[in-house]
Amino acid sequence: MSKLANEPDSAAHKKEAFRLLVKNTLERRLFYIPSFKIYGGVAGLYDYGPWGCAVETNLINLWRQHFVMEEDMFEIRCPCVTPEVVLKASGHVDKFTDLMVKDEVTGDCHRADHLLKNFLNDILAKDAKITAEKKKEILTDLASLDEFTGPELGAKIKAYNIKAPDTGNEVSEPYPFNLMFATTIGPTGLVPGYMRPETAQGIFVNFKDLYYENGNKLPFAAAQIGSAFRNEIAPRQGPMRVREFTLAEIEHFVNPYDKSHPKFKDVAHLEFFLFPRAEQTGLKDHVKTCIGDAVAKGIVDNETLGYFIARTYLFLTGIGINKEQLRFRQHLQNEMAHYAQDCWDAEIECSYGWFECVGLADRSAFDLKAHTSKSGVELVAHEVFDKPKDVEQLTIVPNKKILGKVFRKDQKILSESLESMTEAEALALKAELEEKEKTIYRVCTTGQEFELTKEMVTISQQVVKTHGRNFTPSVIEPSFGVGRIMYCLYEHCFYTRPYTPGEQVSSVFRFPPLIAPIKCTVFPLIQRKILNYKAELISNSLTRVGVSNKMDVTGRSIGKRYARTDEVGIPFAITVDFNEGVTVRERDSKQQIRVPDGEVVDVVRDLANGSRPWAEATSSYQVVLVPDAEAES
Amino acid sequence: MSKLANEPDSAAHKKEAFRLLVKNTLERRLFYIPSFKIYGGVAGLYDYGPWGCAVETNLINLWRQHFVMEEDMFEIRCPCVTPEVVLKASGHVDKFTDLMVKDEVTGDCHRADHLLKNFLNDILAKDAKITAEKKKEILTDLASLDEFTGPELGAKIKAYNIKAPDTGNEVSEPYPFNLMFATTIGPTGLVPGYMRPETAQGIFVNFKDLYYENGNKLPFAAAQIGSAFRNEIAPRQGPMRVREFTLAEIEHFVNPYDKSHPKFKDVAHLEFFLFPRAEQTGLKDHVKTCIGDAVAKGIVDNETLGYFIARTYLFLTGIGINKEQLRFRQHLQNEMAHYAQDCWDAEIECSYGWFECVGLADRSAFDLKAHTSKSGVELVAHEVFDKPKDVEQLTIVPNKKILGKVFRKDQKILSESLESMTEAEALALKAELEEKEKTIYRVCTTGQEFELTKEMVTISQQVVKTHGRNFTPSVIEPSFGVGRIMYCLYEHCFYTRPYTPGEQVSSVFRFPPLIAPIKCTVFPLIQRKILNYKAELISNSLTRVGVSNKMDVTGRSIGKRYARTDEVGIPFAITVDFNEGVTVRERDSKQQIRVPDGEVVDVVRDLANGSRPWAEATSSYQVVLVPDAEAES
Repeated sequence: MSKLANEPDSAAHKKEAFRLLVKNTLERRLFYIPSFKIYGGVAGLYDYGPWGCAVETNLINLWRQHFVMEEDMFEIRCPCVTPEVVLKASGHVDKFTDLMVKDEVTGDCHRADHLLKNFLNDILAKDAKITAEKKKEILTDLASLDEFTGPELGAKIKAYNIKAPDTGNEVSEPYPFNLMFATTIGPTGLVPGYMRPETAQGIFVNFKDLYYENGNKLPFAAAQIGSAFRNEIAPRQGPMRVREFTLAEIEHFVNPYDKSHPKFKDVAHLEFFLFPRAEQTGLKDHVKTCIGDAVAKGIVDNETLGYFIARTYLFLTGIGINKEQLRFRQHLQNEMAHYAQDCWDAEIECSYGWFECVGLADRSAFDLKAHTSKSGVELVAHEVFDKPKDVEQLTIVPNKKILGKVFRKDQKILSESLESMTEAEALALKAELEEKEKTIYRVCTTGQEFELTKEMVTISQQVVKTHGRNFTPSVIEPSFGVGRIMYCLYEHCFYTRPYTPGEQVSSVFRFPPLIAPIKCTVFPLIQRKILNYKAELISNSLTRVGVSNKMDVTGRSIGKRYARTDEVGIPFAITVDFNEGVTVRERDSKQQIRVPDGEVVDVVRDLANGSRPWAEATSSYQVVLVPDAEAES
Repeated sequence: MSKLANEPDSAAHKKEAFRLLVKNTLERRLFYIPSFKIYGGVAGLYDYGPWGCAVETNLINLWRQHFVMEEDMFEIRCPCVTPEVVLKASGHVDKFTDLMVKDEVTGDCHRADHLLKNFLNDILAKDAKITAEKKKEILTDLASLDEFTGPELGAKIKAYNIKAPDTGNEVSEPYPFNLMFATTIGPTGLVPGYMRPETAQGIFVNFKDLYYENGNKLPFAAAQIGSAFRNEIAPRQGPMRVREFTLAEIEHFVNPYDKSHPKFKDVAHLEFFLFPRAEQTGLKDHVKTCIGDAVAKGIVDNETLGYFIARTYLFLTGIGINKEQLRFRQHLQNEMAHYAQDCWDAEIECSYGWFECVGLADRSAFDLKAHTSKSGVELVAHEVFDKPKDVEQLTIVPNKKILGKVFRKDQKILSESLESMTEAEALALKAELEEKEKTIYRVCTTGQEFELTKEMVTISQQVVKTHGRNFTPSVIEPSFGVGRIMYCLYEHCFYTRPYTPGEQVSSVFRFPPLIAPIKCTVFPLIQRKILNYKAELISNSLTRVGVSNKMDVTGRSIGKRYARTDEVGIPFAITVDFNEGVTVRERDSKQQIRVPDGEVVDVVRDLANGSRPWAEATSSYQVVLVPDAEAES
């Protein structure tokens, strides 16, 4: 969840203005389109137009390369429609709620915590005369937002006398609203189901098969990329809070007694911002930390969790997230689920504040145990001991001969009942028989009672040599909100520069080539058949080698066409003129090189897939000097 | 929809046995996992395990290359959650239904048409003494299945005295059941929505923005790949009929008066099976036809539709669909929606019969007009005429001076009312004034009446030079059912061969390298540290150049490990032994070549991306002769 920093009003306005500038470009060039716009749209639903869709596809492909392929994970795909029983087991039916208040007059719904947060941030931003004590109180409330219960939130709303935004009406007491989209499965209308709120459950329920496919060995990881759904109460933060989104989730199953990671040494030296619990409760800031040290000092619970934090850092900065606006924030003790061992959120700073974009959690054995207990199917791993271990084991042996003589046909039911006693019951019975020689025993399934004597059943604790054991693996879960990462990426890659000297500005996305929606545009310098023909040949050759590209044969000036491709972040442009060879232009430097016709496809392919840096290309080919005004007007 | 051919009982059994064999491999190796299996599963929902997920990803990437990139389409992504108004406009709320019957005793639901189809196919398969006349009647009923209304289906079920399967109970009259999963959007519970039954509507509602992004030019195409949902009544055909599936849809927008296609000439020579209307009603078979001829003769309505049919043929056969089991079936006249110009289904034959896997429809202007009328936003294109055209145009000019004198302050409202008359109203008024010199005119917004004379308004028809016009584009829609294509692909690529001479058989998927779930396995010949180390180096290098691969370091015999990779269709295996260089084995020929260490990564990359055929590799490198029994045991 975002924690808006305390900041003066003018900084807030600056952020707002920046956001509008980015939004304007994103919506004008159809990175985003408010869904069902011609019908007035639906809050919290966005379409990705051509450029946005291409960026998402590239981002997902890179994620798949970085995690699924390089870490050798199983990727699986499960449906969104999920029967109730699964989400009952996972806890979502009972607990996947946000606290909501209603405007007492209009019935409009608001998230109770957002109401309080916005109110408090407003005070911090606007009230210059606030006392240091009051400020500390507000900051403490803001830091505790995720931990307040319904009644606590209600009390705060009353204490601060907060009204409904826009209308100023009274609001109701907070009450929980379940965020899942409900439906029914099949024609009878009797089978309740939901659209999945996360992809993780699909992986957990398949643990047994995946463990088998992995040769019954731990650790292993499974990943899933797909849609998830949350029926947000009042989504108001643009693409950062939506009702349908793409998640990329990993469930890494590991022996709870050995969470070391063989590749941790490869990343242990990395330094980046951590925001541990102690810094948060001390109202301090995040600090640059070496992940190896953080694990060694126990700030991060274990190597595997630390490994994924570091790999996440590499992934996010690799796609273009600014490392100064990225931190890993540890969950506060009360903020974590009771079963969780340790949780860190990768938070990215954007104009909406610091926002959770990736959750990294050591969820211990909770999920597998929950599904084991609900489904009756044991989701466990087996461990073979290095050498056999001596283990105390309870044995219950009914003396069927005596029981048969005394109780005749009831012998069977009585023996079965005795054999199925829990350890506690058996030990109690043993103690009683040893003390009193006989006792009354009740078969709970039938209600019958029998008088047992000491000879009738032998209960003993024996030491047995065992060669292995079954156990429930721990799960370490990195969960990526693809849409939030994308939006932050847009903000981090966006900049403006003068378009014509002293005149308009033009906007640019400095996407790394692998993320850029397409890699290259192909322009005939002016509208001539022969230039169009050559441009088309080049474009087709690029397509054949898998370099996405577009031709622009409009009569617009070359400067305007460059500006249009900069605006959607296309890193390279090929311009065809009447000479031998072509020019290749790089987006951010606006440098151009002259490349022979026969080499341009290979050069652009290598530039686009990152195997050739631009600096190298400018030293191999002639750099064309273009007076800025001439080139860009 | 599938039309099961008439076939003797033994052929049906053979198909069933083949299907079980394929299913056994697909489920054992986790291509499919029945969703939520540990909870008993849900009919019509399947997970894709690691291999199935990888095949789908590859198939989608190839589709994107073949259509989006090579045809320069806009790809967009819209949400699955869709508000009711959109699906009301598209007709889905009212008409997206299947006819259902209920078992009168148990309440079990059945699809009425499937009940009739299975019953009739059973007669054909089992009743040897059936008369030619009776057989023709049954075949005619089968061919008309999609066209029967509810009462007609009910009458047929009565006439044939069909009972509920399994129970033998009476069934109800057929009644329509809407196949959409319903939900509500937002916290109030008052905004109805559905999970989209197709991705197409998301494209239609964005027509205006996409047309603008395309420089206000036709034709252009937009594509979408994503999940769609149909709450099937009783899905019983494995992965061929499911409740959630991936669609890849194209909407190609074109001028209705010019459906030529500039690239049609590139595909006009292609020959494949067409199954036109005339052949179906004449109870004949599909015929190999040249697509150029079919368009020239008007069997296929236009070049653009013909072009997409041919491109679909190239795509499907390119990924491994057997061209002898692929045909394009034209919709019968009654089977098509009233607005459709022409429709063809790409049907693929599998053990379930001939099944629609791609729908190719010329839907004329229906969808854009429906959304224009419901939303009030004009979804039209503009055409500039080559030279201006003379068009008759009605003009209404109130004489405001006279009107002001006579009616004073009412002049304004009266003038506005006159100017906003429809063409019919204006012509009627003109006729009346010419006949009677004066008449009573009623302003419908206020109810006021005025006595008008001839001088007060001039109504005339004038010929005006116009330079262009607005019109609603036609839509040609190729819609790919990705899951159905995948399942058919599995059947078409599956074969078995002896594993050890005279013993077991092993199964193989002969996937083309680009479709294969991963491209290569890397085996140390036996378990030795030094071999594992070399294998790992090769595996990491392959990953770095984007060749998906897995190591298998288990102690299984090399023959068993080859069999395990054949079974999931991995085309190449690298085996590391104690010598210089490695062997590379091809799956189907079982041939092996010896490749120097320094070249193996490049060789396998080129083999995997299809740029180097195996035959070429065997002529460049030494072919290793391996006695079959030695290699494979």
